[in-house]
Amino acid sequence: MEQVLFDFIERYMELSPDEKQLIRELSIIKSYKKGAILLKEGKVSYDSYFVLEGCLRTFWLKNNEEKTTEFYTEMEVLSAASSLDGSPSLYSISCVEDTVVCISNPELEQAAFDRFPRFEMMCRVLSEQLVAKARLELDKYKTSSAEERYLALIESRPDLFQRVPQHQLASYLGITPESLSRLRGRLVKRQQSYQ
Amino acid sequence: MEQVLFDFIERYMELSPDEKQLIRELSIIKSYKKGAILLKEGKVSYDSYFVLEGCLRTFWLKNNEEKTTEFYTEMEVLSAASSLDGSPSLYSISCVEDTVVCISNPELEQAAFDRFPRFEMMCRVLSEQLVAKARLELDKYKTSSAEERYLALIESRPDLFQRVPQHQLASYLGITPESLSRLRGRLVKRQQSYQ
Repeated sequence: MEQVLFDFIERYMELSPDEKQLIRELSIIKSYKKGAILLKEGKVSYDSYFVLEGCLRTFWLKNNEEKTTEFYTEMEVLSAASSLDGSPSLYSISCVEDTVVCISNPELEQAAFDRFPRFEMMCRVLSEQLVAKARLELDKYKTSSAEERYLALIESRPDLFQRVPQHQLASYLGITPESLSRLRGRLVKRQQSYQ
Repeated sequence: MEQVLFDFIERYMELSPDEKQLIRELSIIKSYKKGAILLKEGKVSYDSYFVLEGCLRTFWLKNNEEKTTEFYTEMEVLSAASSLDGSPSLYSISCVEDTVVCISNPELEQAAFDRFPRFEMMCRVLSEQLVAKARLELDKYKTSSAEERYLALIESRPDLFQRVPQHQLASYLGITPESLSRLRGRLVKRQQSYQ
């Protein structure tokens, strides 16, 4: 299972046997059942999650309704909820499927940096890329219609359509389940008229 | 002018005189006139900008219309456009006001890390915070109405309402200038009825 983590890190830097051994020692790998809650809104948490297998979902409550903000699948990183300023998490984290994660936290990271300083370089580069990714996603979200977002998601993350319940997908796209269903109908019709 | 940069960095770590000297040596400080274009959509750029004074705006064209994606004011960092995967910038950067920035790039950063490795730590921590910030902004954007976004912006960045043209502000909020104007009217009316 660690191999997924090694593969991910080796996108950034080749790992020596010693470095792999350290990662094995420091890795906290945990398995959760579908539906399990990893973090509850309102708790302070400095844990970050790297998804080895399965799917995590972040959501918050608004007017007593669950709003899904993101899905995290294999090889994706969910940064610590309180890393911005130590304040309580605004969202909860749950498992959409049976999920295996590698958990990290600032102490474990520091221990790794102390032994192999170039891990810090990797974390910096990774974080810079995550900033760019989150930024781009926000900019795209702002300037696109629900239909454009739906089509972009089919293109970029087709697996989500099989893995995630419709109402969570709708909420993630910022629309109601009814709108999502109408949108799908419209697109199917349009496709048929092209054939 | 560098003092703004020192103040910013000292939120993360105290600077020694030697470190300040290095920053002075490596800093590229540039002034631009209102309306100047710092980067054009389609160019590859690894420059990042720290705003010392003024206001930068990122935008892209969609259906021949300028869509404003973000404003960056004093003490804010605009990460390099191509840092995700080296691809050309999707957006342009322009100056909303006369603006002074400190420009950095990977070579300058590496030179700083080589001399003082703890700068890399600072950049990692800063990047992790920027990820959390961008993530939170995206999540909030997804789950809020235009009116909620408008009210949140008045709360968090009241200065923008004085500094930025209405049509750019509307585009940034994801609505038309007409909708923004109606929204304002509605809020004024509501406020009057409370008085």
